[in-house]
Amino acid sequence: MSTESEPSPPATSLEVRSTVTDDGVVTMAVGETEVPEPAPHEVTIRIEAAPINPSDLGTMFAGADLSTAIALDGPAGVQATLPPAAVAANAGRLDKAMPCGNEGAGVVVAAGSSTDAQAMIGRTVGFVSGNSYAQFRTMPIAQCLPMPDGITPEQAAAPFVNPLTALGMVETMRDEGHTALVHTVGASNLGLMLNRLCQADGVGLVNIVRKPEHVELLRGLGADHVVDSSTESFLDDLAAALDATGATIAFDAIGGGELASTLLATMEKVASAGGGDFSRYGSATHKQVYIYGGLDRSPTMLRRNFGMAWGLGGWLLRPFLARIGDERAEQLRQRVADEITTTFASSYGHRLSLADAVDPDQVKRYGQMATGDKALITPQAS
Amino acid sequence: MSTESEPSPPATSLEVRSTVTDDGVVTMAVGETEVPEPAPHEVTIRIEAAPINPSDLGTMFAGADLSTAIALDGPAGVQATLPPAAVAANAGRLDKAMPCGNEGAGVVVAAGSSTDAQAMIGRTVGFVSGNSYAQFRTMPIAQCLPMPDGITPEQAAAPFVNPLTALGMVETMRDEGHTALVHTVGASNLGLMLNRLCQADGVGLVNIVRKPEHVELLRGLGADHVVDSSTESFLDDLAAALDATGATIAFDAIGGGELASTLLATMEKVASAGGGDFSRYGSATHKQVYIYGGLDRSPTMLRRNFGMAWGLGGWLLRPFLARIGDERAEQLRQRVADEITTTFASSYGHRLSLADAVDPDQVKRYGQMATGDKALITPQAS
Repeated sequence: MSTESEPSPPATSLEVRSTVTDDGVVTMAVGETEVPEPAPHEVTIRIEAAPINPSDLGTMFAGADLSTAIALDGPAGVQATLPPAAVAANAGRLDKAMPCGNEGAGVVVAAGSSTDAQAMIGRTVGFVSGNSYAQFRTMPIAQCLPMPDGITPEQAAAPFVNPLTALGMVETMRDEGHTALVHTVGASNLGLMLNRLCQADGVGLVNIVRKPEHVELLRGLGADHVVDSSTESFLDDLAAALDATGATIAFDAIGGGELASTLLATMEKVASAGGGDFSRYGSATHKQVYIYGGLDRSPTMLRRNFGMAWGLGGWLLRPFLARIGDERAEQLRQRVADEITTTFASSYGHRLSLADAVDPDQVKRYGQMATGDKALITPQAS
Repeated sequence: MSTESEPSPPATSLEVRSTVTDDGVVTMAVGETEVPEPAPHEVTIRIEAAPINPSDLGTMFAGADLSTAIALDGPAGVQATLPPAAVAANAGRLDKAMPCGNEGAGVVVAAGSSTDAQAMIGRTVGFVSGNSYAQFRTMPIAQCLPMPDGITPEQAAAPFVNPLTALGMVETMRDEGHTALVHTVGASNLGLMLNRLCQADGVGLVNIVRKPEHVELLRGLGADHVVDSSTESFLDDLAAALDATGATIAFDAIGGGELASTLLATMEKVASAGGGDFSRYGSATHKQVYIYGGLDRSPTMLRRNFGMAWGLGGWLLRPFLARIGDERAEQLRQRVADEITTTFASSYGHRLSLADAVDPDQVKRYGQMATGDKALITPQAS
């Protein structure tokens, strides 16, 4: 822990906010906000780094068509047009200037009167807050994860969303009685992290990717089972990988189309290949797919050619953490801090100031969420 | 318990069997089978009555197009043609003569040497066996449910499938933390039973029906919430009924199309109508739909406009009974026997001999599963 005194934080900070209006426009702009004095169990953080995760884009752009992004006429900001359905889906946030950014990291520069808060002064902490795209924030210490000595804010910038999601998938797999899992966006930042986690824990993982080069990427990182959904042999390759691993649960970020149905049907095919008595209700093996993202916004189409022992559902990190309780959640968080430069390391393709983050050209780039090009906002940069 | 001696059962019995062949034909015919002597914990039952439930049709006709039903040229029997997909789905039973009929009732006419078996001689029992369309069957006493004195075999003929399914739905609702439920085929035999059960137990039930006369039928039976999916006001009526009952779980026998999606979306609309903080992940209320039938065989289409707290899955009686364990299952069975002429009563629109059951005209009639026209096979009739 640092014992040097930090300069007092300023009374105001620049931040990014996003507003949807009923004319079907989302506006994301840089503005000023107050930095409150920390209450006894709070700290104020000088934010050095905050990633743009896929899960941040929803709050930032509300489903807008990013090809329509144009610069604001005046302050630093960007506007984009929403399809009508997206306006309806965002009825609950119309005219509200929403802060953005689920997580980030920085240095504690002020603390409330409690001993726990005072002990954090000068430390590098990761945090989860929903408003990390700002220069300074005051928040409860319960939202902070102090990092081991020597960890930089950039290394600590993504300590919650991807690490706890990867851990949550493996924990959910175990809790529900499965022994291996499928992930449908194997080459994503989360996918690469899950690949490392499963290797560390000896858990079977079937990585689905959509490009041949991503097969190479994952194999180069030691993945045993990588199947490419763009190939003609996809169904056979998938069946072979499911058979080899015994995976009967999948986590799917695609959502739309027939992928979930294909996963359930292929799991069923593998489960019933062993023979046994015929049942027109299918095998007794429970097959589960959790949808945790919606890269394909079209409807999910289920052919129901996979017996009756199946489930499909939404999966979100926060309800998972609530379900497992504080003690287990704290164990997971501590593991993330301990392995933040190894299992749970993130890497970034480009860095953006707050002004860059609302630049239309940058928006079009990071909005693609291209593999290997993850964006990191560095709010202290000008 | 009767103490009169019963005549010994014959060594052979007539029975119905169904066979699928790889030329895409299903043949259901009456033939002879042996009636084994009962082992120590077995009894032989003279079967007096066995219902044709929707769940029996799958084994009987394997998904055949019943409009193609024609009489066999020779012994009593019927043939029908399967679409190619149905042949593939039945690969596990090709050329096997499958017995039919999940449940039935009759009188115990012979018993094994154990005290428990001997005590059942002369008693009227319901049973679950998978081969009830026969004149006599020998089976373990564990498959039998002895009826209170004065209950006729016809009254006892359907003691498992519908009663335990109705109870299973309400128990599943409770086990998963819901307080009211939706049933998508309210006017079915099962639906009417569930309506009585929910009234008896004070459980909120939303009945969905597809015809105006079924609204009248259920209202006449005291149902508080009946919504007709054929009307223009369906969505509003459904939302009002969900709001009034607080139902957040549904049991759906339709399966295909958009009904499950509509149920989840309407539950979400009701759950989020209370206001509260906007979340682009939707409400925190978990919404669940279980598909337990497939009246519409088309794909299930999910629009995913219902947040992230949702689940969809298959639901079957046997895994449910296995999950709750022997003790709770026995309590449910005992309740069925106690209330077989009230809560769990079934009624029938027509009665069929074994020969009638394989008559093409009768097949076309009972294959429609029309409301109020349930068929009862009476194997002792000639």
